[in-house]
Amino acid sequence: MANTRVAHPCLHGKIMDAEGAAALIRPGTAVGMSGFTGAGYPKAVPQALARRIEMAHAAGDPFSLKVWTGASTGPELDGALARARGIDFRAPYNSDPVVRDQINRGELDYCDIHLSEVAPMTLQGFFGPLDTALIEVTAIRADGALVPSSSVGNNQTWLDQARQVIVEVNCWQAREMEGMHDIWCCDALPPNRQPIPLVRADDRIGSPTFRCDPGKIVAVVETDSPDRNQAFRKPDETSHTIAGHILEFLGHEVRQGRLPASLLPLQSGVGNIANAVLTGLITGPFEGMTAFTEVIQDGMVDLLDSGKLRMASSTAFSLSPDYAHRLNAEMARYRDRIVLRPQEISNHPELIRRLGCIAMNGLIEADIYGNVNSTHIMGSRMQNGIGGSGDFARNAWISIFMSPSLAKGGAISTIVPMVSHVDHIDQDVQVLVTEQGLADLRGLSPKQRARLIIQRCAHPTFRPMLEDYFDRACHGAYGFHSPSLPGEALSWHQRFIDTGTMKPALA
Amino acid sequence: MANTRVAHPCLHGKIMDAEGAAALIRPGTAVGMSGFTGAGYPKAVPQALARRIEMAHAAGDPFSLKVWTGASTGPELDGALARARGIDFRAPYNSDPVVRDQINRGELDYCDIHLSEVAPMTLQGFFGPLDTALIEVTAIRADGALVPSSSVGNNQTWLDQARQVIVEVNCWQAREMEGMHDIWCCDALPPNRQPIPLVRADDRIGSPTFRCDPGKIVAVVETDSPDRNQAFRKPDETSHTIAGHILEFLGHEVRQGRLPASLLPLQSGVGNIANAVLTGLITGPFEGMTAFTEVIQDGMVDLLDSGKLRMASSTAFSLSPDYAHRLNAEMARYRDRIVLRPQEISNHPELIRRLGCIAMNGLIEADIYGNVNSTHIMGSRMQNGIGGSGDFARNAWISIFMSPSLAKGGAISTIVPMVSHVDHIDQDVQVLVTEQGLADLRGLSPKQRARLIIQRCAHPTFRPMLEDYFDRACHGAYGFHSPSLPGEALSWHQRFIDTGTMKPALA
Repeated sequence: MANTRVAHPCLHGKIMDAEGAAALIRPGTAVGMSGFTGAGYPKAVPQALARRIEMAHAAGDPFSLKVWTGASTGPELDGALARARGIDFRAPYNSDPVVRDQINRGELDYCDIHLSEVAPMTLQGFFGPLDTALIEVTAIRADGALVPSSSVGNNQTWLDQARQVIVEVNCWQAREMEGMHDIWCCDALPPNRQPIPLVRADDRIGSPTFRCDPGKIVAVVETDSPDRNQAFRKPDETSHTIAGHILEFLGHEVRQGRLPASLLPLQSGVGNIANAVLTGLITGPFEGMTAFTEVIQDGMVDLLDSGKLRMASSTAFSLSPDYAHRLNAEMARYRDRIVLRPQEISNHPELIRRLGCIAMNGLIEADIYGNVNSTHIMGSRMQNGIGGSGDFARNAWISIFMSPSLAKGGAISTIVPMVSHVDHIDQDVQVLVTEQGLADLRGLSPKQRARLIIQRCAHPTFRPMLEDYFDRACHGAYGFHSPSLPGEALSWHQRFIDTGTMKPALA
Repeated sequence: MANTRVAHPCLHGKIMDAEGAAALIRPGTAVGMSGFTGAGYPKAVPQALARRIEMAHAAGDPFSLKVWTGASTGPELDGALARARGIDFRAPYNSDPVVRDQINRGELDYCDIHLSEVAPMTLQGFFGPLDTALIEVTAIRADGALVPSSSVGNNQTWLDQARQVIVEVNCWQAREMEGMHDIWCCDALPPNRQPIPLVRADDRIGSPTFRCDPGKIVAVVETDSPDRNQAFRKPDETSHTIAGHILEFLGHEVRQGRLPASLLPLQSGVGNIANAVLTGLITGPFEGMTAFTEVIQDGMVDLLDSGKLRMASSTAFSLSPDYAHRLNAEMARYRDRIVLRPQEISNHPELIRRLGCIAMNGLIEADIYGNVNSTHIMGSRMQNGIGGSGDFARNAWISIFMSPSLAKGGAISTIVPMVSHVDHIDQDVQVLVTEQGLADLRGLSPKQRARLIIQRCAHPTFRPMLEDYFDRACHGAYGFHSPSLPGEALSWHQRFIDTGTMKPALA
C-alpha cells in the first residue's frame, strides 16, 4: 500500500500493522475511539485488539477496556470487542447487538449520556484519565494535521485528552472529503467560556482538520475498509402516513405564520420514519431548507440532490452502503453543502435553541400525558441509548416524536397509561405523531394532552382500554392534575412480560 | 397620595383606582401578570378583579381568565382570583394553596412549563393572543420608562405582546432599586437569533428599565403594599446535615481541581435546605463566589453581607418579611451587587451551560436510578411545578438534588424503587443528597447508581426494602441494564394511598 495518505514525514516510521498498534493498548485502560452511527470508526485495530484479548483470556489473564466513542460504531469495533469480552464499561451510546446483549444480561456497565455532554464531562475529569485515542482519519497532511473521515464525534477531545494516540488512515474514505469538516470545540472551561460564534447552520467557525501533537502518535495503521451501516428498509405505508401527518403540520405552521416558508433547521433521528419524512419533503412546498442535525442519512442526501435542502450540518454520516458509495464517488460535489462538526457542537443546547431546530425523533413508547421513553424496553432492557434526542427535544423550536401506534405485530401499544421509563418529559414533547394522527400538545394541560393523545395517536385496538384507564384515573386518583393509578399504571408492561401481549386475556 | 412615582406627564390622566383598572379587563381573555415567587406581583387590581368576578358570578354571568405570570405570586393575586373562581387556565408555575387545590380537584387547567421557555413560547404564538399586561413597577420615569420592582419575570414580554397595559406603581418598593435591573430579552426569533452577549454572572447587557409605548397604557394604579413571601422556618438539623454533605463535596471538588476555589456560579432553589447550604457557605472556605440563579432568598443576602458572595444574578427576590424590610431600607447598598434579569435570561440554557452553574434543587422523591420527581405527589397531585429546575439541572456543570430521606413523619421514603413521575431524568441528576449521605453519580451505570443511592441516601428504615427490591429486580427483571419490576415498582405509592404509609403492614 502506497503511503500517499500519510504525508507527514515523521510519522512514516510509526506505520505498523494493526497487531502492532493493538499491542500498545494496556489492559484496564480507557480508550477513546472515533465512530458515530457506523461511520468513521477504527476498523482494524479493534479487531486486532479483540484477538489479543481473546488470547489473554485463553491464557487466564484478565483483559478488558473502558470504551468511549462518539456514539454507535460498527461490528468491527463494538461487536468484535464485546464478543471477546473486552469491554467492561461503555459510553455514551451503543446500537451493537452483541454489546446490547451484554448490557441487558448485566455483564457490562453502560453509561448512557446526552451526546452533547460527553466532551465537557470528559474535560471535567470525573470519568478518569483517557489512556489512548484510537481515531480513524482520511489522511495525515504534511503539516501533521489530521483530515477527519465520515464522522467527527468526540475525536478532537480524545486526541487532546489521551496520553497516546493511534491513528487509522482509511483510504476507503474519499480524499476529497478534506474541507467538509469544521472542527471547533468548547475548549475553555467555566468560568472562561465564551459564546459559540455560530448563528446559521452553514457557518464555519473552526478548522477543516484535527490538531494533534505528532509526538503523541504512537502508531499509524493503514486501512481500506468501508463504513458499515445497515441498509434501510424501504419506508412502509405506516411510515409514509406518519410522514404525511408531519408534512401537513409543518405546512399548517407556515400558513399560521409560526414558521418561515423555508422552515427552520431540521433535526432528524435515524430510521425509516425519519427517512420517509425527508423523502416527503422532496415533493413538499418548502424551499431553501437547512438541516442542523446529528447524522446525515439517505433521505437527507436525496433532499440535498432535490435542491430543496440547501445544506446540512451534522457530526456524521449514517448512510446505507449504496448511498455511501455514491457520496464517496461524488464527494467534491457535496463538500460545500455538508458540514461535519464535533458532536458537542452539532448537539449543543446553545445552538439548537438559537437556531430554533425542528426536532423529529422516534420513540419506544409514549404515555397519555406525552412523556416519552426512547431507551428502555419494559422499563429494564436498554435498546440503544438516549443519544442526542435529549439535546434536541429540550431545546428545539418544535419537538416532534413519532412512532407507529403498535409494535411487535400488535402485541404492544406504543401509547400506554404510563411509560416504563422516561427520557423526555412532557414539557419536551410538543407534538406526538403515529399513523393514526398527530397531537399538537403545545400549551395544553395534562388532561387536555391525554384526551388528544388517546383520540389522535392511539391505535383503535387499545384506545378503549386507554379511555377506560384515563376515565377511572379521572375519578379515582390521588389528585386530578395528572391523574394516574400507581397500582395499575404499569400493568400493561407486566402483562406483556407475563403473557407476551399487552392485550388482556378474554374474560 | 402624591404622584411622585409617576413622572411621565401623559400618564397622570390614566391614574385611577383598582376598580377602574379591573373594569378594563374583559372576561375570557388572557392576562400576563408580573410576579415571581411572591415578589413584584400586582396587588390591587387582581383583588378588584376578583370582586368584579364574584359579582358577575352572582349575577349568573360567566367570568374567568387565563392567567400567565413569571412564576408563583402572592395571595392577593392567585389566591384572590382562584377564590373567586376567576382562573380557568394558569401558566407557568404556581405555589398558591387555593390554586393548587383547584388544580388537583381537576377544576383548573394548569400548564407547567420550563421557566426559560415561557417568553419564546409566547412569541411563537400558539398560546394565543395576550389581551392585557398587568405589571407592578417601582416607578414610571419622566421619559415613560418603567422602573421594575422586586421581580422581572416575563414582564417585558407581556408589555410587548399585550393589546393593553395596566401598571401598578408600588411605592413600598424602594425607589433606589432603579439601576439594579438588566432588561435584555431574546427578541429576535429564529432564524435571526444571535448569541446572548453575557459571559459573567455580573455582566449587564441591557437596560435598567422596561420599554413600553405609553399609548398602550390604559390605567395606572398607585399602591403601597409589601411583597408577601412567607418567612422561612429556621433550618433544622436535617437541613444542616444535608448542607454539610454538600459543602464537603464542593470542597472535595476544589481539591481535585474540578472546581475553581471560588466555585462556579451558584443556583439555589428556594427552601430551608437551600437556605442552610447558603448559610453554611458563610463560614466555608470559598471566597469571591457568584450566584446565577432564579431567586435571591434570605441566605443569599447573608452570604452577600458576609463578603463571601461577590454578587448575585437572578430574576426575583424571595425574601421573608424581615429580610425584605432590611433590603428595602438599604437598597442603594445592594444595588451594585445584585442584578435582576428577565427569567428567559436568568434561566437560559445557553447561559447556564456557558457559566457552568452549580445547581442545587430540592425534590419530592428520587428513585434508585436517580430519576427525580419534583412536582407530582403520588404521581397525580401537583405540588408547585417544575419551575426552573429543568433549565438548571440539564445545563449545569454539576446538578445536585437534595432532600431529607423521609417525609410525612416517616411514612414516606423519598428514595423509592421508581418515581411516580419524572421531571429530571437520571442523566440530569449528578449528585443526590439526603441527611444520610451524598451519592456522586457521575459516570456510573444504572446499577452502580442504584447501589450507591440505596447505600448513601436511603433512610435505614427503608433501606432493606430497597435492597430487597433491587436484588429481586437484578434477578428477575425483563432486562438487567436498569432492572425494574413493573408490577411492583409503584407499589410503595399505592400502599401509601391505601394505608397512609409506604411501610408494609406487619406480617
